[in-house]
Amino acid sequence: MKYKVTVFLKDNVFDPQGNSILRVLHNLGYKGIQNVRVGKVFIVESDNNEEMIKKVANEVFCNNVIEKFEVERMGE
Amino acid sequence: MKYKVTVFLKDNVFDPQGNSILRVLHNLGYKGIQNVRVGKVFIVESDNNEEMIKKVANEVFCNNVIEKFEVERMGE
Repeated sequence: MKYKVTVFLKDNVFDPQGNSILRVLHNLGYKGIQNVRVGKVFIVESDNNEEMIKKVANEVFCNNVIEKFEVERMGE
Repeated sequence: MKYKVTVFLKDNVFDPQGNSILRVLHNLGYKGIQNVRVGKVFIVESDNNEEMIKKVANEVFCNNVIEKFEVERMGE
């Protein structure tokens, strides 16, 4: 089974990387973009169930102080 | 409108970061994980339509030589 674990900064945490990208997009002439936030995604192939993947995400992939995560099943 | 742009390495491109993470997970005692691949995710808030977001993803977020991307609408 494949799982997609997406890790973002929490909404109230400032995202300097996203802000830089937003500024670059404006400088390049892309209009109508209000905000960009950046995260990481991990595609995990595993025999384990979703609970185990959530445990790994919580303990290893995500810094719970400033980040949040979500886990999606992607099928076999 | 919010869009989620996910950028991965193409399937046939070696992912050293993912491989390192896999090794670390095994060293930490997590069992039953066969593979990990890593990507980036961009949450873009924009007035533009999905075609425009795909254009930005294609021209700025994604290095088409080694990466692929997908765009999802996340709602308002």
